[in-house]
Amino acid sequence: MKRTLGVCYYPEHWPETQWADDAARMVATGLSWVRIGEFAWSRMEPSPGTLTWDWLDRAIAVLGEAGLKVVLGTPTATPPRWMIDKHPDMLPVDANGHVRKFGSRRHYDFSHLGYREECRRIARLMGERYGRNPHVAAWQIDNEYDCHDTTLSYSDDAKRGFQDWLAQRYQSTDALNRAWGNVFWSMDYDTFDQIELPNLTVTEPNHPHQLAFRRYSSDQVVAFNKVQVDELRKHTDAALIHNYMGRITTFDHWKVGNDLDIASWDSYPIGFLSDRIEGTPKEKQAFLRQGHPDNQAFHHDLYRAVGKGRLWVMEQQPGPVNWAPYNPAPLPGMARLWAWEAFAHGAETVCYFRWRQAPFAQEQMHAGLLRPDSEAAPALAEARQVADEIATMPPVGTAQADVALIFDYESAWAWDIQPQGADFDMFRLAFAAYRALRRAGLNIDILPPDASDLSGYKLVLAPGIMKLSDRLKAALRAFQGLALIGPRTDTKTDELSIPVPLGPDLPGLDTKVALTESLPPLAKVKLQDKGQFRHWFEHLEGEDTVYLTTTDGRPAIMGGKNLRYLAGWPDDKSFDQIITDLCKEQDIETHVLPKGLRIRDTDTHRFVFNYAAKSLPWKDITIPPAGVHWESR
Amino acid sequence: MKRTLGVCYYPEHWPETQWADDAARMVATGLSWVRIGEFAWSRMEPSPGTLTWDWLDRAIAVLGEAGLKVVLGTPTATPPRWMIDKHPDMLPVDANGHVRKFGSRRHYDFSHLGYREECRRIARLMGERYGRNPHVAAWQIDNEYDCHDTTLSYSDDAKRGFQDWLAQRYQSTDALNRAWGNVFWSMDYDTFDQIELPNLTVTEPNHPHQLAFRRYSSDQVVAFNKVQVDELRKHTDAALIHNYMGRITTFDHWKVGNDLDIASWDSYPIGFLSDRIEGTPKEKQAFLRQGHPDNQAFHHDLYRAVGKGRLWVMEQQPGPVNWAPYNPAPLPGMARLWAWEAFAHGAETVCYFRWRQAPFAQEQMHAGLLRPDSEAAPALAEARQVADEIATMPPVGTAQADVALIFDYESAWAWDIQPQGADFDMFRLAFAAYRALRRAGLNIDILPPDASDLSGYKLVLAPGIMKLSDRLKAALRAFQGLALIGPRTDTKTDELSIPVPLGPDLPGLDTKVALTESLPPLAKVKLQDKGQFRHWFEHLEGEDTVYLTTTDGRPAIMGGKNLRYLAGWPDDKSFDQIITDLCKEQDIETHVLPKGLRIRDTDTHRFVFNYAAKSLPWKDITIPPAGVHWESR
Amino acid sequence: MKRTLGVCYYPEHWPETQWADDAARMVATGLSWVRIGEFAWSRMEPSPGTLTWDWLDRAIAVLGEAGLKVVLGTPTATPPRWMIDKHPDMLPVDANGHVRKFGSRRHYDFSHLGYREECRRIARLMGERYGRNPHVAAWQIDNEYDCHDTTLSYSDDAKRGFQDWLAQRYQSTDALNRAWGNVFWSMDYDTFDQIELPNLTVTEPNHPHQLAFRRYSSDQVVAFNKVQVDELRKHTDAALIHNYMGRITTFDHWKVGNDLDIASWDSYPIGFLSDRIEGTPKEKQAFLRQGHPDNQAFHHDLYRAVGKGRLWVMEQQPGPVNWAPYNPAPLPGMARLWAWEAFAHGAETVCYFRWRQAPFAQEQMHAGLLRPDSEAAPALAEARQVADEIATMPPVGTAQADVALIFDYESAWAWDIQPQGADFDMFRLAFAAYRALRRAGLNIDILPPDASDLSGYKLVLAPGIMKLSDRLKAALRAFQGLALIGPRTDTKTDELSIPVPLGPDLPGLDTKVALTESLPPLAKVKLQDKGQFRHWFEHLEGEDTVYLTTTDGRPAIMGGKNLRYLAGWPDDKSFDQIITDLCKEQDIETHVLPKGLRIRDTDTHRFVFNYAAKSLPWKDITIPPAGVHWESR
Repeated sequence: MKRTLGVCYYPEHWPETQWADDAARMVATGLSWVRIGEFAWSRMEPSPGTLTWDWLDRAIAVLGEAGLKVVLGTPTATPPRWMIDKHPDMLPVDANGHVRKFGSRRHYDFSHLGYREECRRIARLMGERYGRNPHVAAWQIDNEYDCHDTTLSYSDDAKRGFQDWLAQRYQSTDALNRAWGNVFWSMDYDTFDQIELPNLTVTEPNHPHQLAFRRYSSDQVVAFNKVQVDELRKHTDAALIHNYMGRITTFDHWKVGNDLDIASWDSYPIGFLSDRIEGTPKEKQAFLRQGHPDNQAFHHDLYRAVGKGRLWVMEQQPGPVNWAPYNPAPLPGMARLWAWEAFAHGAETVCYFRWRQAPFAQEQMHAGLLRPDSEAAPALAEARQVADEIATMPPVGTAQADVALIFDYESAWAWDIQPQGADFDMFRLAFAAYRALRRAGLNIDILPPDASDLSGYKLVLAPGIMKLSDRLKAALRAFQGLALIGPRTDTKTDELSIPVPLGPDLPGLDTKVALTESLPPLAKVKLQDKGQFRHWFEHLEGEDTVYLTTTDGRPAIMGGKNLRYLAGWPDDKSFDQIITDLCKEQDIETHVLPKGLRIRDTDTHRFVFNYAAKSLPWKDITIPPAGVHWESR
Repeated sequence: MKRTLGVCYYPEHWPETQWADDAARMVATGLSWVRIGEFAWSRMEPSPGTLTWDWLDRAIAVLGEAGLKVVLGTPTATPPRWMIDKHPDMLPVDANGHVRKFGSRRHYDFSHLGYREECRRIARLMGERYGRNPHVAAWQIDNEYDCHDTTLSYSDDAKRGFQDWLAQRYQSTDALNRAWGNVFWSMDYDTFDQIELPNLTVTEPNHPHQLAFRRYSSDQVVAFNKVQVDELRKHTDAALIHNYMGRITTFDHWKVGNDLDIASWDSYPIGFLSDRIEGTPKEKQAFLRQGHPDNQAFHHDLYRAVGKGRLWVMEQQPGPVNWAPYNPAPLPGMARLWAWEAFAHGAETVCYFRWRQAPFAQEQMHAGLLRPDSEAAPALAEARQVADEIATMPPVGTAQADVALIFDYESAWAWDIQPQGADFDMFRLAFAAYRALRRAGLNIDILPPDASDLSGYKLVLAPGIMKLSDRLKAALRAFQGLALIGPRTDTKTDELSIPVPLGPDLPGLDTKVALTESLPPLAKVKLQDKGQFRHWFEHLEGEDTVYLTTTDGRPAIMGGKNLRYLAGWPDDKSFDQIITDLCKEQDIETHVLPKGLRIRDTDTHRFVFNYAAKSLPWKDITIPPAGVHWESR
Repeated sequence: MKRTLGVCYYPEHWPETQWADDAARMVATGLSWVRIGEFAWSRMEPSPGTLTWDWLDRAIAVLGEAGLKVVLGTPTATPPRWMIDKHPDMLPVDANGHVRKFGSRRHYDFSHLGYREECRRIARLMGERYGRNPHVAAWQIDNEYDCHDTTLSYSDDAKRGFQDWLAQRYQSTDALNRAWGNVFWSMDYDTFDQIELPNLTVTEPNHPHQLAFRRYSSDQVVAFNKVQVDELRKHTDAALIHNYMGRITTFDHWKVGNDLDIASWDSYPIGFLSDRIEGTPKEKQAFLRQGHPDNQAFHHDLYRAVGKGRLWVMEQQPGPVNWAPYNPAPLPGMARLWAWEAFAHGAETVCYFRWRQAPFAQEQMHAGLLRPDSEAAPALAEARQVADEIATMPPVGTAQADVALIFDYESAWAWDIQPQGADFDMFRLAFAAYRALRRAGLNIDILPPDASDLSGYKLVLAPGIMKLSDRLKAALRAFQGLALIGPRTDTKTDELSIPVPLGPDLPGLDTKVALTESLPPLAKVKLQDKGQFRHWFEHLEGEDTVYLTTTDGRPAIMGGKNLRYLAGWPDDKSFDQIITDLCKEQDIETHVLPKGLRIRDTDTHRFVFNYAAKSLPWKDITIPPAGVHWESR
């Protein structure tokens, strides 16, 4: 399949007279797709029940007739002001109990069933009107779930919903009390309606109480999304998509993804660098105008899996944004590099956000492909270059990787609730493993926690999985490659308690976590191979083979031929060594890449990306800063 | 005009038997003025309608008859407890929606019209009683507007007032929706009473929404002040004064100043050093007991302009204060130096705060000229020395400066709302420019954003002015000297949107800001003159002459003979170089001063101040630490 | 008296079938005591008035018959959920006015009289049932007062109680207004019911207002405790104990201690290291797995005094805990060392917390003597070793110290309210003095602020005592040794104002604090003996002898033969020098100990503890890491 480019566009922001010119210019830039509509509810329905589709009809027609395929967004992330009059209690409530007011976006509570019905209604109306429109080739539902911390709401609706959810899950408060260990501090409940949301308690609420609320809240996102999916399915065969964000773990993307056709995400490499990725200011300085070289790759691999193989980038940063603490401009060439990195990871389509920089409102300092005065912004030419390159490039496919990494959202909730060490974070741990794999030049597939077949892989990593699912355990038992689990893997029950006997509980593995330590930033546990653990160290016991020890003789890696447990959190250098050793054992080729160079193999090509601000060597060639090189495999 | 000294005094704190001694000792110290009354409402009116003026009559008599002129304060910053019973909703509300309770001071909401009427009443009563009192030679209205963040209140009164203000400004919600770009996220309003205050929204509220609230809130301060001005004018011809604070930008001081006769401010050089002035702990260590050498000068110049030429220091730090994170004692001599710095900048009067350290309540650790036990504190002798020096010194006048700096409060609000880079702050930017000018040994005038005549100046700087006023544009067009505007100047509309065509919009300037970058602390943009920009960099385009470029060839300063645009935020060293170059071009003499030495010229003298903790050379003399030197011009 | 060991146990957490095995194993480990019951209210009274003592009867019987003595806890720190239905307003309220909800523990307001009666009732019921039970040899009342910041509550009950307390203390608002200096900002009150709790004010409330609320709140803790004491005394002669926490100063432990028989505390050396003790991360790295070598000693000495000579450690950390920012495991041997350190300081009993790690709820990651799977955790063998050592060791007694340190809770409140320098903290100051004394190898007694007899001591330190009590003043007057008071000692009135004449006010001392400076972290005041003051420096005046000066000639230590005033806060090195000099003068032997080595003398032995992670020399022997050495005196 040929890759395609697109752009996000807001016809409601511009005079109708400008639409045709814009459309023609998009086509001239080599764009195939245009996303519209996702914030336009006040223009679709300016007052309750008054539908004004005419402008949208014309916008779709103008864009479609120019040769563009439309992604039509449901506008449910921005309910109009009148909706609040109709449903005053639909506003979300923060953890301090303050109502989060109208005046920006995402001002709705996922638990509010009245608003959910309003979303069903607008989805139905849009489906009826545009479901068979020949120009509408895909749909986006809502926009960026959880943006601005909106998964969790501490409203009365959430409380009622949570109590009902608990009643269904546990059937009796006795069962709930036992499951949560409420005997601990006389926290037992007599009736479900005594159970409050887990905020504003004197000290931390019981961990399974918190986990239940995280599960409930995630379920509401899934249900909220499904209402619109179900409506739209009645009226359209076009692909249904949501645009996920980077580094959000508050809801289970695997479950939302199951109801959709394509997973897309919004990729802001520079916007994320300063405060959403680990690293010292000095380390980040090296990638100031490029973004972290592994952040996009991780999310491409993650969401390709969430999309069951189908991946888009729905929003691609084209220039400085407005919302990061600091907003430098990309290095020339990065808007091209990012697109090719996405394509090399299997993205079908990359849409730049946005066509023209809006001169007004909250995002007025967010660059687009055009400036507010309609002149070309720097990224426009880079988009044109990508389009030209796509045109001459055969389909590159998406290679099956040798290596897989398991990623689990429930574990992220568990470790948020129970970090035990202040810097323990599920995403951070998984990303540390991913980065080590990618520094070794490997292709990586990310798999869900209920993966049932690992047969295509030579190496599988599963760090930090709270409790391994029965399906994954079966897959691990059958696995002929080498699986490295841990730290902290399968060390909890489904209710975030410690299993007795102690975990992990895997047939054939006689390795147990006897004692757990978290370590402050300066502390380290030295390893015999000259590496070290930071942050986290588990004391292992059992009869399995010890593959690596600490300098004082404790097991650091332990297990058997196909399944081993990693007892700590290696720092980057140590992780590199561990990955290199395992790959050598599994006969997987690794690379020693200059700092900033990354590679990604597709079915047909090897792509080499230079994220450094200086030229770097690759074999006998030199790749300039922001350069993309490809060669046949 | 001869300079004079004064002091702040609270007769209600001390036994009446002590008043005459205190007064005699003030006179013996060489003080001419005494400020009283501004916190004494509970003593003037202990219960509603019960006026007890007798003690105040006697206090004024005792002080006046001793030879002191009285500044009488209206006590509206400290409404008594019974006022809260009368107007329970007059208490301000913080951004979290919590009522800010009685128990300290400034517990009133500027939007509360009932309290405003109470203030009118007490001003009328005081005017009637003391307006013609021969000893009352000036009035202070309220005390330190905005102290403790009181300009903004999120009360129901503020909401109603804001909605009314919006209705008057925009006339229709359609107009408001268009002006604010509310289409952006379906944020349109149908009626004015739907518009909430811009707090507690899910993510940041629309920028013009926030700006409108900042304008509204500033207007309430202006209106609150004017109510008392209007009352007092009926009864007195004495000068009306408010005592502004340092580094407060939440209300438009230019507008308040227009209604008053003299601008005064409260100068706490050491109190401000540790957390209200930029600089590393190490840099601040050098001025630990002296305060930043440019902070006082900036505010003197600013408030001299706000006072339309008439400036006082109403409160001058005499020793350690109680409210800074750390409170060291001044270097011996600083209480004298600060006074002379004020006089050299045109201050008519400097009042030390306070006469005797109060041994009780919140400020008990705040030093005065006397200790709590009535012994002399170190500053008393320094005040006496200043008084002696004034006596023998002819009037020094206030020299017109060669250089002017434009300062605008609306821009401060705009960049608070839309910093784009986390460390972008209007005051900080203006102060960076000011410091560079002062390090070059220059006199500086600060001008309002509607200045209409620049003809007296050779060099004008206007950094960070959101939108240049028509009057200032006309003045710039007529200007024969050299004006350096930018960064970020005239890049927005009046509604905090981006103008199309892009700004700046100045006749004769073919320079536009095409793209904006903010930069994290470690990043820099290197300049061809070996300088560098930090924090902020704008990509300029146009046909104007480029006077300075970055090392990669982008314009850094661009424009024409008389008007140029500065594309970034120079660090101190680079700013020094730029100022030196511009001054050389404009034939303005600059100095290379040892670190800590500052000069200020009056009509008759050049003053040299040593803020360093060690002796420094000036020409062929040596100035000791905290030393003040003057020489005829 | 022989020292004994014990453990904390929760029969309600485990199947009844396991109790006998657990008891036998405790006995086999050499434990004598078992604490039970303190969180089990929901099991004692599952619904209002339904008492289910049978399980507790059996648990006590099983444990007692195995040979263990029981400490029975009243369960008032964990009221069951039904209690909230009965007393909905018993929940505490935080400083923002948010109700602190059910769902963890300590969800009660000390001011709520209804809940206080419930506690009286359950204490009575337990006393009636178990007061004469032969196995119940001691009682614990409630658990860890103030844990999770629960001393202060801003509820309506607290407000009413506070107003009543004020009326009783001051009798008239006139008296209160005068005492507080409410004239300062017109803060006068007309009636007691106008007086709000001192939270959410516009700026800081008046300091005596805050101090009154701190005194009131402390009094409620004392009263709350006394209600249970009074009930239990009717039914039992067993010792009554509370388990205090480390470094808590929000209530007056001296007063609570007066009503009890034994003071116990909960000692978590590693848990406290990272964020509850001063020091750089690097300094703390040295004691990562040992805890700070002076923290436990300080609290042993403090609570031995609070317990009027009778001290227990009720909870002793045995392994990693769950609640510190980072939770490393102790160095092997530390669970033994900590117990011996306690015994050497006079502890009668040390109870490890807890017997078996609970696999569920908030503390599931908190280690015990057993793992969740009932295997021995590392500390079990160390407890066994201590028990063996006790068995062969004669009673060691508790030596009278040569040196005493005065510690005062009211002063801690005063300096919380009025730190004047951001890093001034009473505990920190007292602990700095204590650490210097202990580094010199001294035994230290800690004394209450109303100590009336110092005759047993050669050296007494009293830093930071807001106001010296009349009794202590008399004791100082009679003292034949050397007392060093200051900084900040006796510089305030009882109402947290400055006395006139200035303090300190001690017969025979002609030294006054004329002026006070607080200093930011980088600043220092250099002393003639090459030492330096940090944080704090007072300018002294008077006719007394100056024993030490600053390099610029100001007094640093001043006074007479027996009583001197220290003008600043010495850093560690300077404190060492000062202590060494004073001890030499007083003929007290001091030691120069290797970093990490500490000594403690009992009546019969000298104990030497190695807190370092490496071996250290003591005389001609080598003490291994975590090693304990004792030798006869």
